[in-house]
Amino acid sequence: MSAPKVQLLLTGNELMTGDIVDSNSAMMAQVLKDIGLGINRKVTVADDLALLVNEITYMASTSDILIINGGLGPTVDDLTAQALALVIGEQLNQHAQAYTHLINWCKQRGVELNAPNLKQAMLPKTCQIIANRNGSAVGFSVRYKDCDIYCTPGVPHELKTMLNEQIIPIIAESIPNDVITDITRLQVFGLGESSLQKIIDQQLSDWPTEIELGFRAGMPLLEVKLTINTSQGLALKSLWQKKLTDVIGDHLIAEIQGKPKSIADHLLNQMQKNNLKVTTAESCTGGLIASKLTEVSGSSISFEAGFVTYSNEMKTAMLDVPARLFEQDGAVSKAVVIAMAKGSLIKSNADLTIAVSGVAGPNGGSDDKPVGTVWFAWGSLDDIQTQCLLLPYKRIYFQQLVSAIGIDFLRRYQKKITTIPNYVIERAFSNP
Amino acid sequence: MSAPKVQLLLTGNELMTGDIVDSNSAMMAQVLKDIGLGINRKVTVADDLALLVNEITYMASTSDILIINGGLGPTVDDLTAQALALVIGEQLNQHAQAYTHLINWCKQRGVELNAPNLKQAMLPKTCQIIANRNGSAVGFSVRYKDCDIYCTPGVPHELKTMLNEQIIPIIAESIPNDVITDITRLQVFGLGESSLQKIIDQQLSDWPTEIELGFRAGMPLLEVKLTINTSQGLALKSLWQKKLTDVIGDHLIAEIQGKPKSIADHLLNQMQKNNLKVTTAESCTGGLIASKLTEVSGSSISFEAGFVTYSNEMKTAMLDVPARLFEQDGAVSKAVVIAMAKGSLIKSNADLTIAVSGVAGPNGGSDDKPVGTVWFAWGSLDDIQTQCLLLPYKRIYFQQLVSAIGIDFLRRYQKKITTIPNYVIERAFSNP
Repeated sequence: MSAPKVQLLLTGNELMTGDIVDSNSAMMAQVLKDIGLGINRKVTVADDLALLVNEITYMASTSDILIINGGLGPTVDDLTAQALALVIGEQLNQHAQAYTHLINWCKQRGVELNAPNLKQAMLPKTCQIIANRNGSAVGFSVRYKDCDIYCTPGVPHELKTMLNEQIIPIIAESIPNDVITDITRLQVFGLGESSLQKIIDQQLSDWPTEIELGFRAGMPLLEVKLTINTSQGLALKSLWQKKLTDVIGDHLIAEIQGKPKSIADHLLNQMQKNNLKVTTAESCTGGLIASKLTEVSGSSISFEAGFVTYSNEMKTAMLDVPARLFEQDGAVSKAVVIAMAKGSLIKSNADLTIAVSGVAGPNGGSDDKPVGTVWFAWGSLDDIQTQCLLLPYKRIYFQQLVSAIGIDFLRRYQKKITTIPNYVIERAFSNP
Repeated sequence: MSAPKVQLLLTGNELMTGDIVDSNSAMMAQVLKDIGLGINRKVTVADDLALLVNEITYMASTSDILIINGGLGPTVDDLTAQALALVIGEQLNQHAQAYTHLINWCKQRGVELNAPNLKQAMLPKTCQIIANRNGSAVGFSVRYKDCDIYCTPGVPHELKTMLNEQIIPIIAESIPNDVITDITRLQVFGLGESSLQKIIDQQLSDWPTEIELGFRAGMPLLEVKLTINTSQGLALKSLWQKKLTDVIGDHLIAEIQGKPKSIADHLLNQMQKNNLKVTTAESCTGGLIASKLTEVSGSSISFEAGFVTYSNEMKTAMLDVPARLFEQDGAVSKAVVIAMAKGSLIKSNADLTIAVSGVAGPNGGSDDKPVGTVWFAWGSLDDIQTQCLLLPYKRIYFQQLVSAIGIDFLRRYQKKITTIPNYVIERAFSNP
């Protein structure tokens, strides 16, 4: 048996102007997900009676559950009850239970029940009242053409309490208990969406339809999501998740539990376990790598110092980079990043370092070293690794990408991973 | 003549699950509002071909402009082109212009054009291509049943550039030209939305209705927008804009022309004119101030070095902060930030510096110095200014705010502004 189809209808002029971002629907999606339900369609309209009547009519005929959010307030632009009454062909009447709620609500607050408030008791006769213990507007529901319609208040904390205490338990009751929703989220770095899709097409071309694959590209991480809705899918899960993580290889950062962590967070966790300290020597990223590390709460255990050496003179003054290297090799060179890496380790007494020097652009590129050229050096004093990449992106994106890759080089080094990451295969640049 | 009816269709499983909050539609509403258009209906669906075909068919028949967002990526769950082709009764063909874009895109990045990417060139034959200079997916538009349909990428910065540079100018052309839209945007730092609203209520209580005031709170800047739609409003503009900027005072960063600049950008511009160099000495912000400065293209002219001194030992080693100060005053103290500021000026030979030391939390607070306590020192060797503030926010927000305030202290210092900013009046903390 398939899961009930859920749709959301949000109403409110403020949702249409861009002045506020709608967070209610994400919250509704979350609590519905907890009982295994997804939302397959969501409509947002301004406070307009004709539009609302239209939407409710169509949505009720194409879903099993319709949650309407907003439009229950006391003002003239609150039209949900009126629209619903028109759709189901009823009059608005003063509803005894809603009226009692209003009387008590006002009494508790020592205020008089006024005419605008009284409007909140004018509801379709056959509706069921849903209690609201945080506000004056009760919720209400009707069953219409095999669809359960729930009308809810737009104020977030009123909505949340009403959903959790009243509506979700009712909906959960009605779900056939063989409905399955199993979601796995994987955090991937260094494999783009299209590269991963290509690998899957080639190496896992018989991917089972029972496991739905989804991708969400973030900066810098890609999230891969496996969604399973059937017991057949569940039976296939461990085998195919294993096959997938095998092709993702060392680009897999972690399986996400709860809130996703940054690569820096994973790195520092590992460093703390190994009782090691890390430092940074940054030219083109100008402090961004250090700031990504220190965003992590508790980073002071593993990070004591970072060096932002933007000019050649300061590379020499702060990190003892021999001045002759700038003439011999240039500031963006293997020799210079190695000297920066060593200097940072010596000056900070850290165990590991990451050093970067590159051409962030938009100016400063040459034929040999075009905008996007970047040298990395990382590791410990007795084992410095290097790599040159070509990342021809806009300045700020370039800086973010270089920072993320630098931190990933350290993550791989820490974990003694020796496979070559995709970004090196695709972006390696032989800088003379 | 009435304005065209605009609808939005957003597609993406991630929008339905509650894992991310949709911010694209608020952004689209903002840029449409700038040319005087509202959105009257918005639909969000999962990546499902039948649903998409249905929505596009219905929405095209009930609007003049339909903007579709998302579903242009290379993976199997990206279905916008396929759905649109079905609606308008065309086949998907390899589109020459889109193909050329992909070839160039890959060439510039030195990667091979793979099969999944090639899918992004498979488009309805009659569509017009909309350039995307930030991503592999081109946008495209068709006219169908008197509706202009624009298909746009889901990645926010790709969407934003495409809207501003390509789509909005086309739409603006099509709007009847008796519609007046005059928009002025002011960049403000250090005055919150509610503080500014209060000042306006008190000091400009007779604000004319012909000039619509809007606020958009960003981090760290507040944008204040004046929108005028009538010739009466235009006549009032210069007087009331002057009154408004007078109450904003030195919190006004600039009037925005085109793309807003960061405070760091304004600061560095000024420093370049004065032929001065700036450095940073950061503890609690861990490199974020340096990275904000070096985000600015051409920053190397005024910025040569930054010091991220996270531990006490490294404050002494890198900046010669006397070790006894940590015992006498503590790491978060006036004496220590002054010593950091002086050390950074001496070590880097810069003219100006900003030094910060604070308790970013969530741990490390004490009764005397709770989480959110932060000391600033800034200026030149012979004139160091200091200030302690209490900014009890979450770690990452605290770091961003401290960085922005630090840069603003420098901006004010550079411009010899002596008025006390609102954030000092509201947040000054007398740290023992």
